[in-house]
Amino acid sequence: MGESFPMKSGGDAHSYSKNSLYQKLASDTVKEMIQEAVVEYLDTDKVTSSMGSSTVAIADLGCSIGPNTFLAVQNLIQPLQTKNLEFQVFFNDHLSNDFNTLLTSLPPERPYHAAAVGGSFYGRLFPRNSLTIAYSSQSLHWLSKPPQGIRNEAGIHGSGAPEPVARAYSAQFETDFGSFLAARAEEIVSGGLMFLVMPATPDGLSQTELSALFDFYGYSLMDLADKGVVEKSRIDEFNLPIHIPRLGEMREVIEKNGCFSIERMELTNPKSKVAGPLDATNVITHMRSAMEGVFAAHFGASVAGQMFDNVVPMAPRVADCFKALHDISNQLFAVLTRK
Amino acid sequence: MGESFPMKSGGDAHSYSKNSLYQKLASDTVKEMIQEAVVEYLDTDKVTSSMGSSTVAIADLGCSIGPNTFLAVQNLIQPLQTKNLEFQVFFNDHLSNDFNTLLTSLPPERPYHAAAVGGSFYGRLFPRNSLTIAYSSQSLHWLSKPPQGIRNEAGIHGSGAPEPVARAYSAQFETDFGSFLAARAEEIVSGGLMFLVMPATPDGLSQTELSALFDFYGYSLMDLADKGVVEKSRIDEFNLPIHIPRLGEMREVIEKNGCFSIERMELTNPKSKVAGPLDATNVITHMRSAMEGVFAAHFGASVAGQMFDNVVPMAPRVADCFKALHDISNQLFAVLTRK
Repeated sequence: MGESFPMKSGGDAHSYSKNSLYQKLASDTVKEMIQEAVVEYLDTDKVTSSMGSSTVAIADLGCSIGPNTFLAVQNLIQPLQTKNLEFQVFFNDHLSNDFNTLLTSLPPERPYHAAAVGGSFYGRLFPRNSLTIAYSSQSLHWLSKPPQGIRNEAGIHGSGAPEPVARAYSAQFETDFGSFLAARAEEIVSGGLMFLVMPATPDGLSQTELSALFDFYGYSLMDLADKGVVEKSRIDEFNLPIHIPRLGEMREVIEKNGCFSIERMELTNPKSKVAGPLDATNVITHMRSAMEGVFAAHFGASVAGQMFDNVVPMAPRVADCFKALHDISNQLFAVLTRK
Repeated sequence: MGESFPMKSGGDAHSYSKNSLYQKLASDTVKEMIQEAVVEYLDTDKVTSSMGSSTVAIADLGCSIGPNTFLAVQNLIQPLQTKNLEFQVFFNDHLSNDFNTLLTSLPPERPYHAAAVGGSFYGRLFPRNSLTIAYSSQSLHWLSKPPQGIRNEAGIHGSGAPEPVARAYSAQFETDFGSFLAARAEEIVSGGLMFLVMPATPDGLSQTELSALFDFYGYSLMDLADKGVVEKSRIDEFNLPIHIPRLGEMREVIEKNGCFSIERMELTNPKSKVAGPLDATNVITHMRSAMEGVFAAHFGASVAGQMFDNVVPMAPRVADCFKALHDISNQLFAVLTRK
């Protein structure tokens, strides 16, 4: 269920494990917020007694291959380590994820038992009432598939796209996020927590650094079409399976599901920890590791490679764009409790 | 903890997934015995109420990459499927196991949630009281390391070896099997089951087809030493980290641990399902996939390859040996319950 475009693995210059700095910045920002929320919202006595065990079961949904997932898990566990609890952590991602790399790079002295679970988080992954905490960072903006039956001429994503395209993207997000919540509602025990960290926009806005960067991917593809490297019709057919939701859009789906209470839900600004706007060249390089697979699957590896190469010289224009967006908080941090 | 010599993965002629026929024969023999034992010894009401959940958690310890582990798990689940239960299966093997292959080849329509757990089963792998059934097939004869500080001139294993060597092998087995039981005693819930399937010998005997085959590996290595391909001292230093225990030896360790009741413990004869003795050439080929790693780690890939190649022409002598051992039951089937 769901398409899968694994992060680039291995040791080359564009691989995810070497280039997940931006993602790490995002998770540093939420580190304290997570630890506070675990203390404030998790009643371990209640949850362990309703689970009939002293084990806290944690799932990282969309974990990739590390090391960020190990840091995130450590954040979740740290405030609970003083209690007499055991921890079991399930690392989940698509079946195409490199679980061998994940399992062999686990911290040897970890305070938890680890397990890897392959499959789309838009379906069921765990038994009923078996999870204490579910966590998902930088993953839920990936749709299970691009919206179907839309005409998005020369556009490759939904932010700032014509109304029918934008609506189709929203509809696909509602379906997918709805499936995600329905599955987690079965799996998370009453009183359990869910953390969501992902790009989002304030209501009324649709642009983020991420979607601005997608525009430059689009320009780069159109340049390649002008040069005859790729058919323009192939670009018209292509839509990134990514949706950056508005805060209100997320809230609506959560309320429609009805099984979770929203304890915290806000937009943060990880960029505020950086002196000045993001370094565009760095971001272009970092994003390549996360995005190359989805372009290569549609256009082939060669066109995808050229497309990314051609974005590098656009860095000054990308930087201008980023400067304009610098003060906008666009990272969602949400804490939900299972009713 | 523990050395690790993964089954040869991938698609070549010596790979484990293509050559695990002998192992499959062994598990067919115990299929009915397993299903009967699940019905007879597992009080699901009692176990699920003491675990506080309607999930039956199953671990296959030493699962390799399939498909035998999927058949084994299916056997364990089948008698329980009529009840209103959910199943979570943990597939465990050494970290060097190819978990990517395992996870991508899981049956798509499986009646259970799957997870992969990397690490030695001679240590803790799961939280306390979190397993309903632990199963281990054809794995527990692999020691965590060869016995240390022994002189086993020209011999490469302990069966039929001089007394001090045989004693050192027994001692290492007792340590390892003791660690295995201690870890499982923590992990398996009271009333839970443990199935052990592995090569073993009747009390008073030490020879099995497996250990006979090891003798031929030894002859082959000595031939290579005569030809100057390998130093004889390298052979003297080498000891297979495999011990085929006597039934009484196993019983002693289980009783010393004290946490398990032995419900069934017997030697079966999977060969009795085959018309006539085992086909020596087939067995030589099948065993290569399981054994090549441990020889290659000590002697290098080239010597190991030549060693296995040279055993093939010995097939008629191996066959004679197998004929003599045909009527001896040497496959342990044990059902233990956690007190």
